[in-house]
Amino acid sequence: MNNLNPKEPVLLHSQTRHGLHTLILNSPSSFNSLSEEMLSALQVALDSVAKDDAARVVVIAAAGKAFCAGHNLKQMLAKPELAYYQQLFAQCTRMMLTIQNLSVPVIAKVQGLATAAGCQLVAQCDLAVAAEGASFGVNGIDVGLFCATPSVPLVRNLPAKQAMEMLLTGGFISAEQAKAGGLVNRVVPLSLLDSETDKLVEAILAKPRAAIAMGKALFYRQRETGIEAAYQLAGQSMACNMMHPAAQEGVQAFVQKRTPQWPV
Amino acid sequence: MNNLNPKEPVLLHSQTRHGLHTLILNSPSSFNSLSEEMLSALQVALDSVAKDDAARVVVIAAAGKAFCAGHNLKQMLAKPELAYYQQLFAQCTRMMLTIQNLSVPVIAKVQGLATAAGCQLVAQCDLAVAAEGASFGVNGIDVGLFCATPSVPLVRNLPAKQAMEMLLTGGFISAEQAKAGGLVNRVVPLSLLDSETDKLVEAILAKPRAAIAMGKALFYRQRETGIEAAYQLAGQSMACNMMHPAAQEGVQAFVQKRTPQWPV
Amino acid sequence: MNNLNPKEPVLLHSQTRHGLHTLILNSPSSFNSLSEEMLSALQVALDSVAKDDAARVVVIAAAGKAFCAGHNLKQMLAKPELAYYQQLFAQCTRMMLTIQNLSVPVIAKVQGLATAAGCQLVAQCDLAVAAEGASFGVNGIDVGLFCATPSVPLVRNLPAKQAMEMLLTGGFISAEQAKAGGLVNRVVPLSLLDSETDKLVEAILAKPRAAIAMGKALFYRQRETGIEAAYQLAGQSMACNMMHPAAQEGVQAFVQKRTPQWPV
Repeated sequence: MNNLNPKEPVLLHSQTRHGLHTLILNSPSSFNSLSEEMLSALQVALDSVAKDDAARVVVIAAAGKAFCAGHNLKQMLAKPELAYYQQLFAQCTRMMLTIQNLSVPVIAKVQGLATAAGCQLVAQCDLAVAAEGASFGVNGIDVGLFCATPSVPLVRNLPAKQAMEMLLTGGFISAEQAKAGGLVNRVVPLSLLDSETDKLVEAILAKPRAAIAMGKALFYRQRETGIEAAYQLAGQSMACNMMHPAAQEGVQAFVQKRTPQWPV
Repeated sequence: MNNLNPKEPVLLHSQTRHGLHTLILNSPSSFNSLSEEMLSALQVALDSVAKDDAARVVVIAAAGKAFCAGHNLKQMLAKPELAYYQQLFAQCTRMMLTIQNLSVPVIAKVQGLATAAGCQLVAQCDLAVAAEGASFGVNGIDVGLFCATPSVPLVRNLPAKQAMEMLLTGGFISAEQAKAGGLVNRVVPLSLLDSETDKLVEAILAKPRAAIAMGKALFYRQRETGIEAAYQLAGQSMACNMMHPAAQEGVQAFVQKRTPQWPV
Repeated sequence: MNNLNPKEPVLLHSQTRHGLHTLILNSPSSFNSLSEEMLSALQVALDSVAKDDAARVVVIAAAGKAFCAGHNLKQMLAKPELAYYQQLFAQCTRMMLTIQNLSVPVIAKVQGLATAAGCQLVAQCDLAVAAEGASFGVNGIDVGLFCATPSVPLVRNLPAKQAMEMLLTGGFISAEQAKAGGLVNRVVPLSLLDSETDKLVEAILAKPRAAIAMGKALFYRQRETGIEAAYQLAGQSMACNMMHPAAQEGVQAFVQKRTPQWPV
């Protein structure tokens, strides 16, 4: 299921049920840092999801006590070259944008620390569920490295001054603060993290794939334009969606007060 | 007061007091769905407000238990043609943008359900007051139709992940959650819905029309641009506003510690 | 320390410690209104900070019971000319944008009222700490003057409907509401206003200047673009930041589990 060294895969990619791809960051000893290997493994996994016509939803989870500690600082220290850093952040950005461009929703399932590019990963996902006790920081500034790339999805998720404080001071916010600000959708006891994430998965699996795919793409595109252009795009998307057999069946079932039978 | 069949008007348009236009969605048996007739009636009513130089504020309210259930799915099912759907969403978008482009503020007064384009209508209004027990959803996805056009004002009112969850899962949020996220301004007991909405109406009626009109137009225009262009637009608007007899009188009254006498 | 009449300086500009510039609005009898003199004094002070290579952080505070009551209405009344008003708002806008363009963070320390352009000043700062009992309004509309220029940073800090209500009705929000909406970072008892602001100052002083400067500039620039361009800018910024001696030292110290010694 993944192209990694089977003895020590940094990412576990499984399909525990039809349509659900689960990616588990599996390098607990490095706090699941986004090393070059981890970034590559995530890219391979997300690319394979993009090619899977049966894919419906992705969950990004993590092994161990922490969700993800961001870039691997030891690796970064080993090659102090501008070209290398440019390539590294380009690799990371490509992976992050693959999440947004994927036609299926991506849910972050977060326990423990999510810091720097790990916090960025949560922000970049479409949805996020956090365990109580999880905390979120973009604290690169503590080592003299302002979390510039994490700031991109962060300011699109949290109020500006809250994001700025985290970026300038390296301070952390709790799961509850993350929810109040908009960074995560739900905060649940750790013992319910799996089952509450499953509820979101179930809800998405119950909808037709085509409508979700059209809608997710439209959502991010329209958000970046003025409202008139946004409505133009949205009106076209919705008219096309309405012509799709799934919507025709869904609306018919609603009018006839029966459960829809989605076309495959 | 409206151009509809007087026996069964889908929209009641009245001016209960000078300057206040009240539009009541009046098709409770269809949960005030935005049928072609309702959309036309709203367009006619809003266009007549636009032509009324004495208009000061619009309240959009609803008869019955629900605020508005969105598009009329039976009508949509009857004409499964792309051109029809394109025309229908264009009609709806035109009405929604008329609200934003109107020179007077528009307040949604919401009880019960506001779903799909009904939730969009709340989001598109300038202000919204909700009764306790009201709930908000963009659940077209339940019938296979992603609420693309509702997503346009929704993501300009709520945090992105909260909006995305509602769009992907069809889940509802309560009036209290809507307030915490930014979708409505106030939540009040149903028995106080009229009087609390009236307080907002009163506050607006007490201000000079010209300043409100300049300000509302500027607000939406500047929000869509970069901050430097936004300040350019705002500075021009404010200098012009300050030259208006109303502002000259208002500032004079303030300095002289008396109540302003707005020019008509 | 400032170029003002020493007998009655409207702005006190001091450096109580290395790198910290404190600007105190010092016209309590006018509720620290942003008169032409005050705007000029702020511009002079901010420009001198911009030229001080040792500057690390700015605190804007206020003498007396109120933080700032906005423009000086008496002055505005004395010259009812369009060209004058255009020049006045241009002067104010230049000062506001100087705050954003400054390479060091600017913190608003707020007690009492912050109204109209005074509320704008809070919104325009990078961070804000408010004392309990502080309140925030953009109530120019009460004198017939819609707070157009304040609306620019306001809608970039608060949810749109909350900002619109304040602008249309002249209503105030409490410090707690300001925090919940995103306008301020912290609300503390008045007796702790100094010490809690100092904590933010300390946190920023502990980071290397170059990283803060690169990051602050990047933050505001990337926020205004689409996400792909934002990531391009952020990736370049972060690669350059990583090549800086401060980041190299910081990452090395982290890996070696020691305290970083920032290069001067």
